[in-house]
Amino acid sequence: MDWEKISTELSTDTPSKIILLVMDGLGGLPHNGKTALEAALTPHLDNLAAKSACGLSEPVFMGITPGSGPAHLSLFGYDPLKHTLGRGILEALGLGVEVGKNDMVARGNFATHKENMITDRRAGRIPTSENVQLCEKINAFLESREEPRIKVYPGKEHRFVVKFSGENLCDALSDADPQKENKPRAYSQPLDDEAQKTAQVVNSFLDDLTDFLKDSTPANTALLRGFSKHPSLPSMQDLYKLRPVALANYPMYKGLAKLIGMAIVDAGPEIEDLFDALDDIYSDYNFFYIHVKKPDAAGEDGNYDAKKAAIEETDTYIPRLMGKNSDVLVVTSDHSTPSSLKSHSWHPNPFMLHGPTAMPDAVARFSERTCSQGYLGRFQAIYAMPLMLAHAGKLKKYGA
Amino acid sequence: MDWEKISTELSTDTPSKIILLVMDGLGGLPHNGKTALEAALTPHLDNLAAKSACGLSEPVFMGITPGSGPAHLSLFGYDPLKHTLGRGILEALGLGVEVGKNDMVARGNFATHKENMITDRRAGRIPTSENVQLCEKINAFLESREEPRIKVYPGKEHRFVVKFSGENLCDALSDADPQKENKPRAYSQPLDDEAQKTAQVVNSFLDDLTDFLKDSTPANTALLRGFSKHPSLPSMQDLYKLRPVALANYPMYKGLAKLIGMAIVDAGPEIEDLFDALDDIYSDYNFFYIHVKKPDAAGEDGNYDAKKAAIEETDTYIPRLMGKNSDVLVVTSDHSTPSSLKSHSWHPNPFMLHGPTAMPDAVARFSERTCSQGYLGRFQAIYAMPLMLAHAGKLKKYGA
Repeated sequence: MDWEKISTELSTDTPSKIILLVMDGLGGLPHNGKTALEAALTPHLDNLAAKSACGLSEPVFMGITPGSGPAHLSLFGYDPLKHTLGRGILEALGLGVEVGKNDMVARGNFATHKENMITDRRAGRIPTSENVQLCEKINAFLESREEPRIKVYPGKEHRFVVKFSGENLCDALSDADPQKENKPRAYSQPLDDEAQKTAQVVNSFLDDLTDFLKDSTPANTALLRGFSKHPSLPSMQDLYKLRPVALANYPMYKGLAKLIGMAIVDAGPEIEDLFDALDDIYSDYNFFYIHVKKPDAAGEDGNYDAKKAAIEETDTYIPRLMGKNSDVLVVTSDHSTPSSLKSHSWHPNPFMLHGPTAMPDAVARFSERTCSQGYLGRFQAIYAMPLMLAHAGKLKKYGA
Repeated sequence: MDWEKISTELSTDTPSKIILLVMDGLGGLPHNGKTALEAALTPHLDNLAAKSACGLSEPVFMGITPGSGPAHLSLFGYDPLKHTLGRGILEALGLGVEVGKNDMVARGNFATHKENMITDRRAGRIPTSENVQLCEKINAFLESREEPRIKVYPGKEHRFVVKFSGENLCDALSDADPQKENKPRAYSQPLDDEAQKTAQVVNSFLDDLTDFLKDSTPANTALLRGFSKHPSLPSMQDLYKLRPVALANYPMYKGLAKLIGMAIVDAGPEIEDLFDALDDIYSDYNFFYIHVKKPDAAGEDGNYDAKKAAIEETDTYIPRLMGKNSDVLVVTSDHSTPSSLKSHSWHPNPFMLHGPTAMPDAVARFSERTCSQGYLGRFQAIYAMPLMLAHAGKLKKYGA
């Protein structure tokens, strides 16, 4: 099915409002018989579930553990098997680096070489503070260069992002990384003819950088991976005729939302800040993506109790969401993050949809297992968007 | 999956019989906590459900509200995203106009122009009786014309259908409709080279008609929309090796069935007439499509009580269906029509399949919400046909 084509034809601009609350990494696995969501005291989520149509959504398809990119794309109705976001772009978004139409980014590692042989791919995991200082010096050095302009952005420890800005850059490039230690420094190879010139730019930058760092220890060279240009995704305005806005604390989710045309609200760092911001801008938009990171962060840390607490904290804000009386209110997740796995997983997401045209079912507790008994059944997350638009009265009839 | 190719390879001609009862627009939304189907007293449907495998079927995909065309096509195993039926063809079928391989049809509005400016796109919604008289006069005038032959068919109020019959007609034509009033009369534009000649035919017909109607008020011209030729659909005989028949009261459903090769039985106007007709022809066919319009009509009218009554009336005939002891008996719908929306909706259809190889589940009441708990789960309606054929022992094994 070509949902992008169909949505462009069927969607209409209406004032009706849709709120989508994403509790990142919500789903989990039982610990002493209960998942963190099952163990959490969630009177407000449960009250909402009792009035909602519930189900389980598959981010990609059964068995596939998604990264944050595909998990979010599918929630917004973008086929995650068709649209891929390069690692470079996600890393850049995560650091809050602006990526424009003429930019190309890549992930970098500071590394150590000895007579051109890579002896440490992570330069002894230098402290982040050292990374920050190195990047400052490198940027000063790079300022004198002509087009394309190049800038580096420090991440944690040995990690950084490099951005090339100029005309006709092409990201069809192999990684400039020998993958293993005790191999020679690697250059990026063009993967098609168009990328020849960009490969030269990248490789001369690597040589210049290595030369510039010759007296630095242990970080005296760099590896580059995941070259990616700005992905040309159709916007939610074009596809759905929405006025969408993202309320998120973390750069990556803001960046991802921006890629598909959402306005970005700079809220404070706490969950409460998101809901305060919602109050402020509620009359300005008609699609509200609210991203709560805490359950995922706790799951990644393997901290079941912290995850339960993050869910309980979020629960206290549900009455404020319900108070908006939006036409559609969905609470779900992008992917599961069981604390027992300390990572994303392939398990589907609890999903509930509330609104005047939703069919309430017998599910009166919001959890992984109760939602599996809901009216919506088990469905691919890419259908969440058609479903929300339909329930908001924003989709015309298909065919006569 | 290419079901058309697979069905052609796997289907076999057997005497086993399949009955498909379509209760049009059956699904709804709760009113005082119950849908019309939930509120209706349906002892026979419930008895059948208790012995059947139940589920919910999606006409197109989640969130998509189908027109009658795509909703029915999917029930008969035709991908509604691949096969589209033009508005003209559906309007023609609805008026009982025969559309053959060399015919092209369009929807018409009688309209009013003043010095070539359209002043009323509906000619003041002239009474149907006036429309009938106008069409008679126009057809008499048109009889003298050479190929392609042109004939008009009156609909309700200002609406009519026009049929062009001749060789090499092409329906790649824009609407001959200015869309808004106080704009000049519009001509049809060819959308590709092949349609050049047909556009001339259509536009000279419009000029001739406008000239012929010059002394008529208020209907002194016409607008034409939705040009469509006979769609070339593979037949159910070719795909499934069935001998199929349609039992329906309404022209549109008979016409649609005819497009895919079904025989048509002219039954009387009541629900009972359909079941009487079934008795008469039961030995002649092995696939019986029975179409009950009433629940949809009541839903479109926003009449919850009438919808409930239509469901209860249909329920009384279920024992006659069960008495046939067909190999497969399916009761479902084409799409939902909640009376609260007064229109088709995107909600899935209750579905039950009865027969010796069906897996009875715990569903003992036929409704939207109980069916969501059934053995068949929530599935796309295009799978109804493979399922019916399989349960009737008409599909060979796929692969060795």
